Amino acid sequence: MEVSPNATVNCWPVVCIGGTADVDLENRGAFQEWSQQESVRNSCKHVSRPTSLHTIPAHIEKAVRCAMYGRPGAVYVDLPGNLVLTSTEEEISFPEPVPLPPPVSIPPIAEIEKAINTLKNAKKPLVIVGKGAAWSERGATQVQQFLTKSKLPWLATPGGKGVASDLHPRFIGQARSLALREADTVFLIGARFNWILHFGLPPRFQKDVKVVQIDICPEEFHQNVKTEVPLLGDIGETLAELTPRLGEWAYDESTEWFKKLRENAEKNRKAVEKLVDDHSTPLNYYAAYQPIREFLANNDVIVVNEGANTMDIGRTMMPSRLPKRRLDAGTFGTMGVGQGFALAAALWARDHSPKTKVLVVQGDSAFGFSAMELETIARYNLPVVTVIINNSGIYRGLLPEDDKAIEGDRTLALPVLSLTAECRYEQMCQAFGGEGTVVRTVPEIKAALEKAFQKTDGPTVINALISTDSERKPQADHWLTRSKM
Amino acid sequence: MEVSPNATVNCWPVVCIGGTADVDLENRGAFQEWSQQESVRNSCKHVSRPTSLHTIPAHIEKAVRCAMYGRPGAVYVDLPGNLVLTSTEEEISFPEPVPLPPPVSIPPIAEIEKAINTLKNAKKPLVIVGKGAAWSERGATQVQQFLTKSKLPWLATPGGKGVASDLHPRFIGQARSLALREADTVFLIGARFNWILHFGLPPRFQKDVKVVQIDICPEEFHQNVKTEVPLLGDIGETLAELTPRLGEWAYDESTEWFKKLRENAEKNRKAVEKLVDDHSTPLNYYAAYQPIREFLANNDVIVVNEGANTMDIGRTMMPSRLPKRRLDAGTFGTMGVGQGFALAAALWARDHSPKTKVLVVQGDSAFGFSAMELETIARYNLPVVTVIINNSGIYRGLLPEDDKAIEGDRTLALPVLSLTAECRYEQMCQAFGGEGTVVRTVPEIKAALEKAFQKTDGPTVINALISTDSERKPQADHWLTRSKM
Amino acid sequence: MEVSPNATVNCWPVVCIGGTADVDLENRGAFQEWSQQESVRNSCKHVSRPTSLHTIPAHIEKAVRCAMYGRPGAVYVDLPGNLVLTSTEEEISFPEPVPLPPPVSIPPIAEIEKAINTLKNAKKPLVIVGKGAAWSERGATQVQQFLTKSKLPWLATPGGKGVASDLHPRFIGQARSLALREADTVFLIGARFNWILHFGLPPRFQKDVKVVQIDICPEEFHQNVKTEVPLLGDIGETLAELTPRLGEWAYDESTEWFKKLRENAEKNRKAVEKLVDDHSTPLNYYAAYQPIREFLANNDVIVVNEGANTMDIGRTMMPSRLPKRRLDAGTFGTMGVGQGFALAAALWARDHSPKTKVLVVQGDSAFGFSAMELETIARYNLPVVTVIINNSGIYRGLLPEDDKAIEGDRTLALPVLSLTAECRYEQMCQAFGGEGTVVRTVPEIKAALEKAFQKTDGPTVINALISTDSERKPQADHWLTRSKM
Amino acid sequence: MEVSPNATVNCWPVVCIGGTADVDLENRGAFQEWSQQESVRNSCKHVSRPTSLHTIPAHIEKAVRCAMYGRPGAVYVDLPGNLVLTSTEEEISFPEPVPLPPPVSIPPIAEIEKAINTLKNAKKPLVIVGKGAAWSERGATQVQQFLTKSKLPWLATPGGKGVASDLHPRFIGQARSLALREADTVFLIGARFNWILHFGLPPRFQKDVKVVQIDICPEEFHQNVKTEVPLLGDIGETLAELTPRLGEWAYDESTEWFKKLRENAEKNRKAVEKLVDDHSTPLNYYAAYQPIREFLANNDVIVVNEGANTMDIGRTMMPSRLPKRRLDAGTFGTMGVGQGFALAAALWARDHSPKTKVLVVQGDSAFGFSAMELETIARYNLPVVTVIINNSGIYRGLLPEDDKAIEGDRTLALPVLSLTAECRYEQMCQAFGGEGTVVRTVPEIKAALEKAFQKTDGPTVINALISTDSERKPQADHWLTRSKM
Repeated sequence: MEVSPNATVNCWPVVCIGGTADVDLENRGAFQEWSQQESVRNSCKHVSRPTSLHTIPAHIEKAVRCAMYGRPGAVYVDLPGNLVLTSTEEEISFPEPVPLPPPVSIPPIAEIEKAINTLKNAKKPLVIVGKGAAWSERGATQVQQFLTKSKLPWLATPGGKGVASDLHPRFIGQARSLALREADTVFLIGARFNWILHFGLPPRFQKDVKVVQIDICPEEFHQNVKTEVPLLGDIGETLAELTPRLGEWAYDESTEWFKKLRENAEKNRKAVEKLVDDHSTPLNYYAAYQPIREFLANNDVIVVNEGANTMDIGRTMMPSRLPKRRLDAGTFGTMGVGQGFALAAALWARDHSPKTKVLVVQGDSAFGFSAMELETIARYNLPVVTVIINNSGIYRGLLPEDDKAIEGDRTLALPVLSLTAECRYEQMCQAFGGEGTVVRTVPEIKAALEKAFQKTDGPTVINALISTDSERKPQADHWLTRSKM
Repeated sequence: MEVSPNATVNCWPVVCIGGTADVDLENRGAFQEWSQQESVRNSCKHVSRPTSLHTIPAHIEKAVRCAMYGRPGAVYVDLPGNLVLTSTEEEISFPEPVPLPPPVSIPPIAEIEKAINTLKNAKKPLVIVGKGAAWSERGATQVQQFLTKSKLPWLATPGGKGVASDLHPRFIGQARSLALREADTVFLIGARFNWILHFGLPPRFQKDVKVVQIDICPEEFHQNVKTEVPLLGDIGETLAELTPRLGEWAYDESTEWFKKLRENAEKNRKAVEKLVDDHSTPLNYYAAYQPIREFLANNDVIVVNEGANTMDIGRTMMPSRLPKRRLDAGTFGTMGVGQGFALAAALWARDHSPKTKVLVVQGDSAFGFSAMELETIARYNLPVVTVIINNSGIYRGLLPEDDKAIEGDRTLALPVLSLTAECRYEQMCQAFGGEGTVVRTVPEIKAALEKAFQKTDGPTVINALISTDSERKPQADHWLTRSKM
Repeated sequence: MEVSPNATVNCWPVVCIGGTADVDLENRGAFQEWSQQESVRNSCKHVSRPTSLHTIPAHIEKAVRCAMYGRPGAVYVDLPGNLVLTSTEEEISFPEPVPLPPPVSIPPIAEIEKAINTLKNAKKPLVIVGKGAAWSERGATQVQQFLTKSKLPWLATPGGKGVASDLHPRFIGQARSLALREADTVFLIGARFNWILHFGLPPRFQKDVKVVQIDICPEEFHQNVKTEVPLLGDIGETLAELTPRLGEWAYDESTEWFKKLRENAEKNRKAVEKLVDDHSTPLNYYAAYQPIREFLANNDVIVVNEGANTMDIGRTMMPSRLPKRRLDAGTFGTMGVGQGFALAAALWARDHSPKTKVLVVQGDSAFGFSAMELETIARYNLPVVTVIINNSGIYRGLLPEDDKAIEGDRTLALPVLSLTAECRYEQMCQAFGGEGTVVRTVPEIKAALEKAFQKTDGPTVINALISTDSERKPQADHWLTRSKM
Repeated sequence: MEVSPNATVNCWPVVCIGGTADVDLENRGAFQEWSQQESVRNSCKHVSRPTSLHTIPAHIEKAVRCAMYGRPGAVYVDLPGNLVLTSTEEEISFPEPVPLPPPVSIPPIAEIEKAINTLKNAKKPLVIVGKGAAWSERGATQVQQFLTKSKLPWLATPGGKGVASDLHPRFIGQARSLALREADTVFLIGARFNWILHFGLPPRFQKDVKVVQIDICPEEFHQNVKTEVPLLGDIGETLAELTPRLGEWAYDESTEWFKKLRENAEKNRKAVEKLVDDHSTPLNYYAAYQPIREFLANNDVIVVNEGANTMDIGRTMMPSRLPKRRLDAGTFGTMGVGQGFALAAALWARDHSPKTKVLVVQGDSAFGFSAMELETIARYNLPVVTVIINNSGIYRGLLPEDDKAIEGDRTLALPVLSLTAECRYEQMCQAFGGEGTVVRTVPEIKAALEKAFQKTDGPTVINALISTDSERKPQADHWLTRSKM
């Protein structure tokens, strides 16, 4: 079996179908003659191209299997033009169901016991819940049980958000920098020491931090930092074995470590709340997020979140309470996924969870990447609500007075990161037959949200104009750990 | 020197700059760590990645050179993050100018004489002007002189449109199928026997058609069909040697062949004009194009044309009169290039040819691929006029009565090729600060065009709603020659 | 973590180090400037290129880890010339040991119970031991215990030979075709339904054969045939859980199925022995192998076996008794690996198992691919014994009389599959300072083998000249299942 | 037309045919299922894979065309197993001849005039004849005429050797370093400023050296150094236009520049001759080459030369007198090509030039890479003579006394660059039915050569044992210009 390079870095089990030229015209200069397989090889876990109608089912079965089994990834099946347009009298059977559920595995029990001992002996333990926990069939349930029983302090990576609730009593995500920096033992549950976790290296981590790690991918252990106890296996199944073996033990919340984390979290929380409470207009990011946070607290919503500051701040301001309720730009920070994700989420909700709502929160730059998907959403009458946190630029926009100054000659080069000032994106949605509102205050956002979600057909865009110079709350460390830092 | 695969099929000399992760973080899971070079290798004529600041100028010089020299193509230079953020005190010099103009070559004179003899001896000669003629520095001037002096009947491939004027007295593009099918000698000037020319094979061409061909790329000769006289060299320079050597000779327009071509062209022209003159609403494509054709006849306009029927019909309905005045989806039929092309064209016109206007004519589907670029065009205040030939679908939309029938439940699966009925795309342009109009009749289109081009700042969208079942005029042969035909 | 395409098909954990040009000379036409990483990408599980001295240890650690963890595969690290020649005062530390032993996993116990039930319920069970069992740390021990306890009939794939002894009482490899064709339940232990097992499809297998499968690679299940019970995990660890759970149960050797297998095996064995006993000269393959078989029965020998008929017949005629004692051309049938494998085996034996001998048995064609490695073996004085089963051709040579007929003009085209008749390859070994003998009879082979292995320094080549028209014993089915069969 | 990356760096027009698995078995784990096209993409100018019998001719025609047209390169056509074994009743026609001779081009006459003026105005002109001149159909004839008429001093790159004779009165290859370093104007005829010419940069060239360059590849101009006059076209055809236009002009051999070159060449020649004349044994390289040089002076011989010192010194000691009479490791310095080249050369000579002899001169390391091809050469009875310049190592071997010292325990690690001391490679040739001699003195080499070439059937190996510490004559500059030097 071939498992392809890089292809599982982002972990989306996606099956793409291509359509090259008729194979018999290859080499002649056919319409869209191209080596599609080669072009996508590096991005895909598996790539193939059926050569006859009767081999298509086996190719599709294998593609779907590769996308879903092991660590998930994208796959690609190229159907050349001649197959697309051929028919056959012959009966072609398809394996059913395609494919069967992924097989799972667990670490040997001795390793699990070793992991438990390492956790018990930790002075400053920290649990980090990652994306892998979200992909495991029983991951969320088992992570929640483990956190409840072990009483360990924990936080989540962006991809692990929602596996357990951010409102959980021992969630200390607000003390993230401190927690990473001082933990003596880290329990990675489907999380990796890549850039998001600053490679697990000093100064962001202790030099001799002990690592206990559950992962489905054997090559992922010892990445950048030695893994003290590697637990190879499915996360849900592994925790299902591990948690009961904790026995009566639970972490003592009265320790200095836990207290320090709590205090730091509370301090950071207060700093945020100060910004949240500042309702002066034009609004800052945190204030704009306040009515959204309030809405989410009381509803079952799939959140699609995309942008730079908008996504970074959104992770904090939109606590994840439920599994599989958050989609964002992922490990690669890929812009342009927002409205497409929303479309897929709305179709899923319509068929599988009619009470679940779909909310997109995007920066204005991020919105622009996939805004035209609104036409599709409108055409299918899907009740997607999009809030654009619109600061008229990327990272920051022009101040209104600056904008006026150059108004006389807008053909002059504008700063490359600024977008149209107070652009009326909500009118796009109106043009496509949906609703659109422009808002500038907290009450307006709140009212607009409520109204939008009362609607059950077609999209709404809420264009929330905020200050062009709003920023993230000051951070101790830069988000991106670089080679020279 | 490396010249890369496939990379010159589309012939755009484009230089792309990428930005991977810091090289020292490779292998660690860095932010956007990716083998960019490998991913674009197949699509680029040249790919490289500088490793230090002082090697950047040589990498850029070589990249630009490869993009422009020989047959043009896209190139890619990956600047890793660490170089983007480094500075140096050292002086780094850059070759100047970068690069020098491309060197050119011509065939040996004996080959040119042989070509002339072959043309003189032809009973049913046909000149086909292709994309290569457009890329050659002196291509247009020399092609025009050749056509004038030789008096040969000619037509152009889509990429060769405008090298000589479609209004030229011996342009017989309206008799294309007949001309290809019956010609005994074809003179390819920078054109290739790929799918666009039906591979040069029967039944679309004579089995023993004699080919005289000028091309810059030696491997292109004998492609699919033997080249009787291969003229390897720059098109402009080669014709500059060839035309004077025609001496007193010119093709005799009184022959049966020329008469037949003329008659066929006239017959086809009349069939088109019948559609043009049918102004009943909702309009058909040809009628909608009529005021555009009229406008173009009297103005210097760069036309960007994109879509399925819209582009196919646009090639006929918008005669090209001048070189370098038409941009479309090219050999690959790549959708999504429209507004980006228009942006580039408008910037070029602003700086180099202020009287030249920019007109985009797109189908509604094509518009959707790059519509958000309107925000950029508006932000830079560029006077781009877009006419959307809006049939509410791809190839065809729902009929209004069909649309009503499913209105009650638009969540039902719509036909996959239909788009939002009579979607108000022009409002997008308004939302971004530009102008927008919806039109439904020939006079409305005409008036809207005139008004739009009086404006010298910012974009206008003219949303021309036409019949959902308008079609191309019936064609004798399918546009796409397939392997089984 | 990136795991690369195709790269684990052959499963050799090999680390290759390359050396491209100085990075700062890239793009200039440097000596051996080449995109090595791209060139090997498809063949490697992991590819990387350090950019500074201090990143080399991390690159090597990751490369070794990827080669060994999960399903093994080849990896590639390119060290550009500038790193090869640079030194540093800085201390560069290396992770120790590199890497830690691979983490292992096992299937959930419920799956193991399901597997046991399926085996118990089989009417015509068959165990197939594959290459994966050989790569698992505890694979051989656990497979042997399972076979002993379960009393199931079994056979091995070429890569699985030696995991358990071919002399085991229930090994029915001689009845392979029958066993595959009639089994109702197959237990694949690290084996795959690829071409070697005829894709698991009719007519070589039952249409509804039940498959129980242990594999380390999740994507490998359901390949070509549905897996009834997929056991994802390390083979040794999984069997360590499974075997004890068999309890008192064992397969009943008195069944019709087992009797039929036995009888068929015995019939085939006798057919082979008839050939073995035919000592007429020139010898046939089986007779030539007889003294080798005898020698192996009484010694601890690493066998390297390579060729077409020589390898096919060698699998039968050289029973594998011990794990990790056989190297051959593998799943890909790659010729040219023989003497290199022998060199590596001899170095390993010298350092880790001084009583273990190294024997190469190659066809004359196979020998030619890597014969020059004998110079290296001789230079290092390693006691490698090579028997060339020399039929003067590929599949078959010229008959001596034919050879004579064309002797007058050997510049005439010889049949493309024939090699030099009775070529004296043993003299090559003499030329390099080793021993060489030519032999033609069974006693000569026997004596030569004994003498060669008494020598403890330097190589010996025994050139065994056999009949040019010797063949494999007739087979019911072609070894290669093709698409049209 | 696609022209592939890197693929023309070595410029060999080679057509390779592969044979992957049956296409219908792809994805199933078929025998040698592999993406061959992707694996060779980077190394080939063109890659394709026919999908049916009737498309094979067009694929082969295009492959051969791509290999030969423009700058030559390797191409690859993969014939999947199912096509190899299929037959058809249908008539399949093949284009004839395949392909037609490559079309050629020349620069515009004005450019040629400019080149002539630049050469006339040079104070210190230098002509460098490169590989491109060897590949041009009329290259050699025209270069010779140009050199005769222009009277300019010249030298050749390794790939350009023999285009004109090294014995030409104005060949100043012995003064290469001086000539490159001081020339004010360089006329590159099919040569490139890559590592072989030290990138055309200081200190090996003048900073402001004027470059006149003829090349078939437009992207090759301005590489590393600006090209003052780029002459794009076929070398032979271009010189056929240029030389007559020199008119009465010729370079004045009485200038200081020419005198200095001559003196330097003479000084270097004398230094070499001193080594040539030192016949003490064990011989040095130059003395060993002396009888070879003598033999070549009087015979028409295709020389295959491969090795490190052996190749470097061979370029000087074996003057090239005729075009297409020298094959060596090429721009990439690829070892392992020797005996294969000889085999091809001998087949060519047999059919096209029966008086032309084939001589291989290889170092012992180089011989080892392809020595087994001797069996093929012997089998086909081809009269190839190989002289191994055997210094018992790579660059240098052990001194005999050192070798004795470790003889007691040869299992100890030998220095990695030493090979078997005085290895008797000639016995390999005897083993295959050819001749073999070991020689140690100049008269022995001379006698052996004479005897070997009297033989007209089958190969001879002359194993010339020389000193283990012989070296190249001291060089002012290292052969390899590195980034930091």
